[in-house]
Formats: sequence, C-alpha cells, structure tokens
Amino acid sequence: MGQTEGAVCGVVVHLPEADPGRQAAVLRNTANLLRALGPDTQVEVVTHGPGVELCTGETGLADTVAQLREQRVTVCACANTLTARDLSEDDLLPGVAVVDSGVAHLVRRQREGWSYLRP
Amino acid sequence: MGQTEGAVCGVVVHLPEADPGRQAAVLRNTANLLRALGPDTQVEVVTHGPGVELCTGETGLADTVAQLREQRVTVCACANTLTARDLSEDDLLPGVAVVDSGVAHLVRRQREGWSYLRP
Amino acid sequence: MGQTEGAVCGVVVHLPEADPGRQAAVLRNTANLLRALGPDTQVEVVTHGPGVELCTGETGLADTVAQLREQRVTVCACANTLTARDLSEDDLLPGVAVVDSGVAHLVRRQREGWSYLRP
Repeated sequence: MGQTEGAVCGVVVHLPEADPGRQAAVLRNTANLLRALGPDTQVEVVTHGPGVELCTGETGLADTVAQLREQRVTVCACANTLTARDLSEDDLLPGVAVVDSGVAHLVRRQREGWSYLRP
Repeated sequence: MGQTEGAVCGVVVHLPEADPGRQAAVLRNTANLLRALGPDTQVEVVTHGPGVELCTGETGLADTVAQLREQRVTVCACANTLTARDLSEDDLLPGVAVVDSGVAHLVRRQREGWSYLRP
Repeated sequence: MGQTEGAVCGVVVHLPEADPGRQAAVLRNTANLLRALGPDTQVEVVTHGPGVELCTGETGLADTVAQLREQRVTVCACANTLTARDLSEDDLLPGVAVVDSGVAHLVRRQREGWSYLRP
C-alpha cells in the first residue's frame, strides 16, 4: 500500500461528468500531460456516473479516445455505472477497460503511489 | 507527515458544492467506495462553503447521511464556514464532526497518507 | 520521486475554471488554508485553460492575487495555455510564475509529496 521509492508511478485522471466540451478539455489535458511527462508515463482516465458516456462514444469523442489509446492511455469505465445504466462491455469503444468501481480504482492507484488529477 | 508503510489509511471525499443532485451523487459514490474497499476503510466526507448545506439537512439528504453514519462514514463541517454563515453545532445533523478548516483538514489527511477524491 | 519523511511539503491548488465567483472562492479557500496551516506552508495555485484568466486580471481579482503573493502564495500559469491564447508573460499580473504544463506541474508536485486540492 505504501509508495515505493523509485517506482515508476502513473497518473489517474478523474472524469465523472458527461458534458462533451468538458470531456474534450479533459482529454486535451491528458494529451498535454503525456507530452510534458514523456510517453513512458502511465495514464488512466477513470470515468464513472455520467462520465462513462465517453466510453460508449455518446459524447462524440471516439476519435480522440482512439488517439490516446495509441499513446497507451487507458480509458476505464466503472462496472457499477455500467450495471446501473444497463450497459455491457459490448457497448464500449475498443480498448476501454472495465474496473469494478471507478472511485475505488482511483483510491487503489493513489495507494500505489499514483498522482491524482481532477481537471 | 510521511506515509507509514503498512498503515491503514483512509479516504477523504471533498464536497464544496450545495447542489442537491450533486451531493446525492457524491454520497452514492461514497457508498460504492465502501462496498468495493470493505467496511474497514475509513472514509470522511469533508464539506466547506456551500457544501455544508449537507450537514444542516438543507439539501434533504439527512437519511442518506444517517445511513452512511451507520457504516462509520464521518461527515465533516468546516468551522470557518459555520462562523461565516452564523451556524453553530446545534444546527448540524447528528454525528457530523466539526473541523477547524475543511481545506486544511483535507491536506492534513493527505499528509497522513489518506487518498483524496473530488467526485 | 518518493515522499521524503519529514520534508516540508506544500499544497497545490488546482484551478482550471474562469468563473469569477468560483475563482474568488478558491482564493478564499487558499487564504483559509494558510491561516490554518501556518505561514510556512508552501502553496501554489495552478491555473490552466480558462483558469489562466486569473493570471491576466481578466476576472477582476488582481488585488486578491497581490494579497496572496504577500503571503508567499505563488500563482502559476500554464505555458501551453498562454501559447494557445496568444498571451505572453507581459500579459500576466506581477509575480505570476509560468510552468510548462499546468497538469504536469500538478503531477510533479504530488510526486514530491505535496498535497492536492481541487476546490
């Protein structure tokens, strides 16, 4: 649970909102982050609640998600939210990862030493 | 101030907003978090500014606060905000804890190794 | 990259939004934070995107920025945002620091052990 000295730690980007303009801004922030920290930085964009509309393509950002995926950014969808919205993995864009709980995943990553951003 | 290896560390959930729908979502996130991380996880919901309306019951969420309290979640109100709004501890729902400063409390918890969430 | 035991670590306050009322609240939170944690606490308010309008004075908060500067709070502007908005250092209020990327700076500070707040 502690932060290991010298370990390569990543960044979790928290996205709970559905507004397309806001989602686009968060993805731009993520691209800028990668450019500044270098391509070896692990970055996960963690969505839950209305934020999962990024993962289904409903907010029109499938191309940007695909570009980030090429840069090895993982977009994560919360399984609790998928269940609540009657969605399955088949409804998600290619490469989206499912985590049991978006908020719990954000906590576990921080416990592993990852940094947290809520743009 | 450092993070102690192996210590059981909790989670602070930051809530500075009064919108009832948003507050309800934050409390749902908190319940999901507990379910995923287990009941031994310490969780504090830290309110300040308009967010303290959760603590007075003004946003209609007293029942949800009581349910979370049964699961040992502590809801905290910022003393600076109480003073600015001319409120006293008598105006707060049962079990709400008062901290000197909401933002300072969030920093102190992080210094103790707690994770931070801003849903 | 690890958190040094016993080191004096600061706080980064994340401000990506332009709404003047919201910016004023974030600066009040910052002042309250300093009062609670003591004047030796290092605090940086990190702006990017629409948030940089704090740094140009467009949101009418130049006096509050100057007061915080006297308390040794550093307000930071994101160079990516300045470029995107065709702004230069000459357009910024006195004492504003420029960082290469607002989001990357927030991550680097966390890696140094600083706490993160997103009011």
